[in-house]
Amino acid sequence: MAGRVVREIARAKMETIDGLAGAGVATVHEAQGRKGLLAPNLRPIYPGARIAGSAVTISAPPGDNWMIHVAIEQLCEGDILVLAPTSSCDDGYFGDLLATSAMARGCRGLVIDAGVRDVRDLTAMGFPVWSKCISAQGTVKATLGSVNVPIVCAGAAIEPGDVIVADDDGVCVVRRTEAEAVLEAARAREANEEAKRLRLAAGELGLDIYAMREKLAAMGLVYE
Amino acid sequence: MAGRVVREIARAKMETIDGLAGAGVATVHEAQGRKGLLAPNLRPIYPGARIAGSAVTISAPPGDNWMIHVAIEQLCEGDILVLAPTSSCDDGYFGDLLATSAMARGCRGLVIDAGVRDVRDLTAMGFPVWSKCISAQGTVKATLGSVNVPIVCAGAAIEPGDVIVADDDGVCVVRRTEAEAVLEAARAREANEEAKRLRLAAGELGLDIYAMREKLAAMGLVYE
Amino acid sequence: MAGRVVREIARAKMETIDGLAGAGVATVHEAQGRKGLLAPNLRPIYPGARIAGSAVTISAPPGDNWMIHVAIEQLCEGDILVLAPTSSCDDGYFGDLLATSAMARGCRGLVIDAGVRDVRDLTAMGFPVWSKCISAQGTVKATLGSVNVPIVCAGAAIEPGDVIVADDDGVCVVRRTEAEAVLEAARAREANEEAKRLRLAAGELGLDIYAMREKLAAMGLVYE
Amino acid sequence: MAGRVVREIARAKMETIDGLAGAGVATVHEAQGRKGLLAPNLRPIYPGARIAGSAVTISAPPGDNWMIHVAIEQLCEGDILVLAPTSSCDDGYFGDLLATSAMARGCRGLVIDAGVRDVRDLTAMGFPVWSKCISAQGTVKATLGSVNVPIVCAGAAIEPGDVIVADDDGVCVVRRTEAEAVLEAARAREANEEAKRLRLAAGELGLDIYAMREKLAAMGLVYE
Amino acid sequence: MAGRVVREIARAKMETIDGLAGAGVATVHEAQGRKGLLAPNLRPIYPGARIAGSAVTISAPPGDNWMIHVAIEQLCEGDILVLAPTSSCDDGYFGDLLATSAMARGCRGLVIDAGVRDVRDLTAMGFPVWSKCISAQGTVKATLGSVNVPIVCAGAAIEPGDVIVADDDGVCVVRRTEAEAVLEAARAREANEEAKRLRLAAGELGLDIYAMREKLAAMGLVYE
Amino acid sequence: MAGRVVREIARAKMETIDGLAGAGVATVHEAQGRKGLLAPNLRPIYPGARIAGSAVTISAPPGDNWMIHVAIEQLCEGDILVLAPTSSCDDGYFGDLLATSAMARGCRGLVIDAGVRDVRDLTAMGFPVWSKCISAQGTVKATLGSVNVPIVCAGAAIEPGDVIVADDDGVCVVRRTEAEAVLEAARAREANEEAKRLRLAAGELGLDIYAMREKLAAMGLVYE
Repeated sequence: MAGRVVREIARAKMETIDGLAGAGVATVHEAQGRKGLLAPNLRPIYPGARIAGSAVTISAPPGDNWMIHVAIEQLCEGDILVLAPTSSCDDGYFGDLLATSAMARGCRGLVIDAGVRDVRDLTAMGFPVWSKCISAQGTVKATLGSVNVPIVCAGAAIEPGDVIVADDDGVCVVRRTEAEAVLEAARAREANEEAKRLRLAAGELGLDIYAMREKLAAMGLVYE
Repeated sequence: MAGRVVREIARAKMETIDGLAGAGVATVHEAQGRKGLLAPNLRPIYPGARIAGSAVTISAPPGDNWMIHVAIEQLCEGDILVLAPTSSCDDGYFGDLLATSAMARGCRGLVIDAGVRDVRDLTAMGFPVWSKCISAQGTVKATLGSVNVPIVCAGAAIEPGDVIVADDDGVCVVRRTEAEAVLEAARAREANEEAKRLRLAAGELGLDIYAMREKLAAMGLVYE
Repeated sequence: MAGRVVREIARAKMETIDGLAGAGVATVHEAQGRKGLLAPNLRPIYPGARIAGSAVTISAPPGDNWMIHVAIEQLCEGDILVLAPTSSCDDGYFGDLLATSAMARGCRGLVIDAGVRDVRDLTAMGFPVWSKCISAQGTVKATLGSVNVPIVCAGAAIEPGDVIVADDDGVCVVRRTEAEAVLEAARAREANEEAKRLRLAAGELGLDIYAMREKLAAMGLVYE
Repeated sequence: MAGRVVREIARAKMETIDGLAGAGVATVHEAQGRKGLLAPNLRPIYPGARIAGSAVTISAPPGDNWMIHVAIEQLCEGDILVLAPTSSCDDGYFGDLLATSAMARGCRGLVIDAGVRDVRDLTAMGFPVWSKCISAQGTVKATLGSVNVPIVCAGAAIEPGDVIVADDDGVCVVRRTEAEAVLEAARAREANEEAKRLRLAAGELGLDIYAMREKLAAMGLVYE
Repeated sequence: MAGRVVREIARAKMETIDGLAGAGVATVHEAQGRKGLLAPNLRPIYPGARIAGSAVTISAPPGDNWMIHVAIEQLCEGDILVLAPTSSCDDGYFGDLLATSAMARGCRGLVIDAGVRDVRDLTAMGFPVWSKCISAQGTVKATLGSVNVPIVCAGAAIEPGDVIVADDDGVCVVRRTEAEAVLEAARAREANEEAKRLRLAAGELGLDIYAMREKLAAMGLVYE
Repeated sequence: MAGRVVREIARAKMETIDGLAGAGVATVHEAQGRKGLLAPNLRPIYPGARIAGSAVTISAPPGDNWMIHVAIEQLCEGDILVLAPTSSCDDGYFGDLLATSAMARGCRGLVIDAGVRDVRDLTAMGFPVWSKCISAQGTVKATLGSVNVPIVCAGAAIEPGDVIVADDDGVCVVRRTEAEAVLEAARAREANEEAKRLRLAAGELGLDIYAMREKLAAMGLVYE
């Protein structure tokens, strides 16, 4: 049932969150076993942003952004707003006034499986958004939704307080309780990749570095 | 029936048109009661343009851009070409040669519920386009359409001479006869927003500024 | 049947290939009689790149990028990787490590009817990609595909060694054996367009330059 | 602005309307010069229905079906409800209870650029619907829309009182003032087609019946 | 991480499950507060089926149906297979042989956010499927997924053992622990609807039955 | 270049073609190594048809069906028309008159990566069509295409004279020169499947029939 606001949510440590931001979405996604990615039709409104933060979740009716105002009061420094409409909607739920308010509360960005507007202003303000579309069509404030309840956003299940990582590759959610382990795995992965990068840049082949030739032959690969 | 060209169309005053450009799509759309927005899948080929102009409308067969040549002759300084194909089509109806011609006639841009091409050249020329897609697939010149007739473009009904406003948020149409009233409403809206922006930036909440707490409680919102 | 790698493919002359890059997709597509264009939902990951090269083709299972490693060994200086999944897939088949390896082998870019990731790194490296989407969701290495076999990529039939031309307007394939003739036709077309551009910029109308008025009247066009 | 209900609308004569139903969508669309077709993604919930009626139009907010109740009071015998949401929405605005009410008022069917539900019941009741999708997701009753105002539904401009024709081929709108002329043209077209059908069934070719061979040759068609 | 099979899952009582099937998707969805609906692009392969059962969940790689064989061993009488690919895929994961096996284990149907094939046979066998598409493109058996783990299928979070309800309106998931309460609410709803249906069929208006006129007037609805 | 009609094409033996029809799309597709499937968005206009025939191919401009008339003259008993537009188009290229003509020439059906209309009549006539959509929007006859040239239709490369197989699972193309071998493989496959079906129906598991347990364990599958 709609109409619930959960005030207290647990969050991961800020240094863990910031570490995940540094690793980026592709590395974090691999590091946690290829899970938690949001659908790739969520795209950043401008290139180059790379953030992580604790999810303050919003379940909102189609075409109604009332709950964003409620959610903003629940924001702590370093949080990210994550909105899923209860049915598919392209409306512009969020614009420069809400961004001004969210930034004043320490919000790092917005992930929304719907539309945003005022993207020129949002870009100028440096407030990053990952959205399904851009639409000037605004919304009403007539029906209740919920804040800080579990949601499914762009195909991924998200709990309030989970860590959201977002960059030009998309958006990934990390379970709050797994955040430290994932960060550790991400760092190990990066170290490993750096060594491979040097060898590949020098002209060595993945076929040799990863010892694939034998397995490919066993599978029946034929060179003509 | 296709095959009609209307030569004389009424236009709004240029100062009204330019005022609407300054207000931008999101504000104009709100100011006129949330109507007139084109579907959000029309996107600008490059970011940052914000224009307004009088619509010279084109109804074109799929894959046939003959009528654009006819429409260009009807252009006045400050006009915007608005093309709707008679059935869904992704072809690139418009490229750098047509843009050169349209610019020479004072055209400010193109809104098209189909494709465009030569986008690198169009960007270099500073000729803004809002289109459904980018496609190098050209068109033929074999079948008649019409110019300056009422059309439905990307879901919005547009009359020739209506004011088109377009920016990074999308495209909006304002009825010619309502343009001045809408501009006035847009300016009032902007003034009102500026005051709110300052309060929000200072950390005040929308819940308080808009006095929403009581209404939310009456609707049954529960804090846990 | 999957599991074939063709080692030897014929390629067009490098000067022909480079000439086609200079002409660009829209001109090349027109010059070869409006054929060979890939579907317009393949988009560049960053604006401004314009390349041509010989196609090294990859037929890959959904969600499996093993064959890219095999294909990289087959690359020559000036080649372009072209990947078609055997069924629709949004996964990120390709990232910065593979790009590092491909660049080390002389590869000019990637055309893929699926997803890519690490786009911030790819952009920084200047490795251009035309893809259906961007997705951090990686792939496995479990099932065979084929390299340098005929494929259909984004709606276009492509033979290994065909010339791929790609820019902001999309991607076009030119048959290897037709490449020189197409280049010649493209240059003739460019020369012709330049003359028209000057006349259009001076305010002459396409209606007059192309002598369309009589034909339009004969078709029944009515001015009101 | 939303919040308007127009009580009195003009309607075409019932015999004209019923004649258009008999002609069907494809014939009517051709007979009026290929205009007025709604987008083909509107599909019937069950095959075989062929209806026509006067449009009672509804402009509804996304996810809010309150105005359908208001519109039902405006129905006359032989009318068709036509609903366009103010932004894209898949929700099921309409189910068996509303259909029961609409049928009791003489309504012949529903055309909706959104979702419906209870389709098993609607099918059993013989209440035909053309919709964008089927969805059990219901709607709220919180925000005003309008009834019997001009709308754009699935890409077509519709005035209240216009004649809607719908069958397995889709949905077409005929201007109320043109309905009789269109019916006449449709009947002429049907008579003409019947003669051609007999000749084609006997093995004659369209190339000969329509005397196309010469024109094709003049255009440059080559037989190999 | 993929590669897990949970053998023991809790299930709702069969009489509760069968009661929910009788209520149908639209009623169940309303009865549980408008939550749990899968995206409407999942459609039945033939009309008329209405089932409910306990979810045996499958998380499968794109284009790989190996885990369905694993899941079939976990089936109990009255279960429904629910498959979500780890990335978007249209392949036909399931056909008549798997259906034969699943039916032999008591399975009532399949819900799959991907493709199926052999639909003529499945229809003849009376094995209902709700799928994103129909595709003859088969799959491989090369990579592990998981069985009876939490999944997100077509936008809805599903736990193994949750109750799935599916009919012509789509698919809805009911939490196992809420199933009895939802059934009770659904029955209350049905009783209430029946009374309204009779009044509406007799020509009474929803405006009066639901006492909407006053509220509409207060909101500003104007009759012209 | 458009404007070519190839009169003489080679065809497979009729008994081979009819054998492939009997095997159906899913079996044929597997039997030829999982290649040749057209995209799954091509759907039959009515259920239950299962046909095969020799492809008479049509490359047609968007919104222009002139070449269908040309193609009908090239039909032999047992052929199937296969149309690909040169760019994406939803128009209804084909209706009952063309079907009457095609049937009179022995045509077994139509496969079209665009729209059709008069589907009620086509259904009554028993003329099967697999199309991308249904649309009453007709086409013009103004621009040349080609007949019996290689085309790419819905993502598959098709040569004139190739065997097309189509049923409720979709459409598959078999190379003419491979048709007999594919038929043989399809029959072997069917015999093999029948034995498995009986074992599965008796409750045996695929895990045991296909000896998968060991391989799954080796891959790391864990039962909990």
